[in-house]
Amino acid sequence: MSKETAVASIITIGDELLIGQVIDTNSAWIAQQLNAIGIWVKKRIAVGDIRNDIWNTLDEECKEVNLIILTGGLGPTADDITKPLLCDYFGGKLIIDHAVLEHVRYLSEVVYKRPFIERNAKQAEVPDVCTVLTNTRGSAPGMWFEKQGVIVISLPGVPYEMKGIFSEIVIPKLMDVFSGESIIHRTLITWGIGESFLAEKIKHWEQKLSADIKLAYLPNYGMVRLRLTAKGNDYPELERLIDHERNQLKLLVKEWLIAEEDLSLPQLIRKMLEERQKTIATAESCTGGFIAQLLTAEAGASLVYKGSVVSYSNNVKEKMLGVDVKDLKKFGAVSEEIVQQMVKGALKNINSDYAIATSGIMGPGGGTDTKPVGTVWIAVGNNNHIVSKKFHFRFDRAKNIEVTANNALLLMRSFILSGF
Amino acid sequence: MSKETAVASIITIGDELLIGQVIDTNSAWIAQQLNAIGIWVKKRIAVGDIRNDIWNTLDEECKEVNLIILTGGLGPTADDITKPLLCDYFGGKLIIDHAVLEHVRYLSEVVYKRPFIERNAKQAEVPDVCTVLTNTRGSAPGMWFEKQGVIVISLPGVPYEMKGIFSEIVIPKLMDVFSGESIIHRTLITWGIGESFLAEKIKHWEQKLSADIKLAYLPNYGMVRLRLTAKGNDYPELERLIDHERNQLKLLVKEWLIAEEDLSLPQLIRKMLEERQKTIATAESCTGGFIAQLLTAEAGASLVYKGSVVSYSNNVKEKMLGVDVKDLKKFGAVSEEIVQQMVKGALKNINSDYAIATSGIMGPGGGTDTKPVGTVWIAVGNNNHIVSKKFHFRFDRAKNIEVTANNALLLMRSFILSGF
Repeated sequence: MSKETAVASIITIGDELLIGQVIDTNSAWIAQQLNAIGIWVKKRIAVGDIRNDIWNTLDEECKEVNLIILTGGLGPTADDITKPLLCDYFGGKLIIDHAVLEHVRYLSEVVYKRPFIERNAKQAEVPDVCTVLTNTRGSAPGMWFEKQGVIVISLPGVPYEMKGIFSEIVIPKLMDVFSGESIIHRTLITWGIGESFLAEKIKHWEQKLSADIKLAYLPNYGMVRLRLTAKGNDYPELERLIDHERNQLKLLVKEWLIAEEDLSLPQLIRKMLEERQKTIATAESCTGGFIAQLLTAEAGASLVYKGSVVSYSNNVKEKMLGVDVKDLKKFGAVSEEIVQQMVKGALKNINSDYAIATSGIMGPGGGTDTKPVGTVWIAVGNNNHIVSKKFHFRFDRAKNIEVTANNALLLMRSFILSGF
Repeated sequence: MSKETAVASIITIGDELLIGQVIDTNSAWIAQQLNAIGIWVKKRIAVGDIRNDIWNTLDEECKEVNLIILTGGLGPTADDITKPLLCDYFGGKLIIDHAVLEHVRYLSEVVYKRPFIERNAKQAEVPDVCTVLTNTRGSAPGMWFEKQGVIVISLPGVPYEMKGIFSEIVIPKLMDVFSGESIIHRTLITWGIGESFLAEKIKHWEQKLSADIKLAYLPNYGMVRLRLTAKGNDYPELERLIDHERNQLKLLVKEWLIAEEDLSLPQLIRKMLEERQKTIATAESCTGGFIAQLLTAEAGASLVYKGSVVSYSNNVKEKMLGVDVKDLKKFGAVSEEIVQQMVKGALKNINSDYAIATSGIMGPGGGTDTKPVGTVWIAVGNNNHIVSKKFHFRFDRAKNIEVTANNALLLMRSFILSGF
């Protein structure tokens, strides 16, 4: 029998998703993983801890797709209703799985060092109509059901546990069952041109774009990610086609192109520094450590990142970055003079090749007539040269912090490329 | 005519949501806002930029709920298909809205200082069967449709723009149209007791809980948020009931209770510091600025937060935190001695009342036999006393950083409460 192509729905379960108490990061991760093995996600749905709603959603999706990934509702408390519901839905009864029981007992007694109680044992109950997917990272096992050509996979909602089961067991099993249609993405990142203008520039190329390739514009405050997606069965041909189009597109947007891969800005800066074997430091006032945290989020940061001074108080600017207290009084903390001195202080005291400094008013409070909320000075430099620039952002606090960090990294990028 | 109660669905549009390229934060925010005015969200759905999928989803949801919020797909490029689709769905035709046209022209020419091109004008086209919702923060206007008792609201996907239209226009209009059933949430946060044990402790109380009140357990690596939700028409009675139950629950879990409100840990620490008029500093190695960024994410941080040294390299530990270079060689950077010295250095150099220090191996690389990945030393203290503790986390890098930050804040909390 030749293998089928899969089309998937992702269903996440939990009232916390419907009242906005948590942000769902599981779905995006699962979608990425499925895409990588050629499975297209058609829909993502979040429903509450309500039996009828879960049941009806499951019913509807079973008519639409042949693969459903469910997460959440598998815990040991009364609000966790997914397991008995799935048991009824697939016409089974709950039985104790002895391997899971032993694992849960081990977790309780050895890892968490707590007595093993009856409620823990409930986690070892599974419907007798499923294949159990062992959860090595936690107590609630995953479950794999099949019915009338549809595969339904239920996983715990805790991201770390869900990811373990998915990578270790679900992916290999799905690759076994389904024929992976190839899905290839290529992303180009532009900066400094609006979405509308970009669309005008590439209009003629876009109109002639092969029907097998889809173009998406993802604008984000001055940056636009252009994503090409090709779907089909002939991987080599598809790759040839998408790379051909990508190269054409590259020529059209080269003036604004800042990356040819789907890299985040911190990834891009780190890559540039690694290639040049250079190091960086930050001196952050208004961004409060946000840039440092971005540059250290991924492994291997210590190759290029040396450290940061988060100088929220003027005292710290003075003492740890050597900012002149008279200049602080004269120009104020949000000024060209001060960010320049912050860069110098970071270069000297942290002893890095490059440094970034930020100082601004992120809001909602703290604005004045001459320096309203959103006023930001950014400086970047090395021991030869320092460049500084003033910005006026007009967003809320969280967005102002994020956009300041992005612009600081973009300014650093230009500085590195300029070869000072 | 007496007003109806609303039940809502949120539909987000965009392939980027289905391939996992972006995480949907809009839905959670919209859900919070709707809850606050007594509108229950029944379902959240993400669909791709595919006409049939959007149309069918809209059709299905129109049968299930009386309020639909759509976001995304309103840009000026070819992959943005929501506007013409809605125009067809509601049987209208596209016309130019002159107020929107003027606004888009103003944005182009005055704010972005770019020539106004024809494609920009497309953003001013709206179906003649909708009420236009002005977007003061961007170019794509929101739209409000009504058909057979269902209200459908279409908003841009850019979070800052969506939030503006929602807060300024949608919320007041919805409060006008619908009778807000009251929805009250109360959250208690526990720490140091597993979900199963907690469920056992409160079993008898939970069994007797009024049918109007729903209890949810939200576990998160050692912390469990217990959320009570009451829904009904009589607000004062509902509030009396939920506060009565909350007080009962509080007594049952008091041993593990760390907060009586739905505060994040950084919010909790900031509140404790503000009440005591104390300041804090951080000296972060493995957390790379993550704690600093948490403490400065919300307005007013400068009241309690003074600054941070992110000491990724040993050179920075030595130079800016006064860590003894001989001790660094003798004990290694991930050691009790070093985190204690980092706290002392932060207190002295940043001149705060309290300080937190972290040093550990976040992975995936960098582990050794004696200090495997996940080994972390945390110290907290003031000028009288320092407390330090070793941890072994077993997660991936991102989770190890987050859990280290949480434990550092929890240790700080205990330290402040201990009155040293």
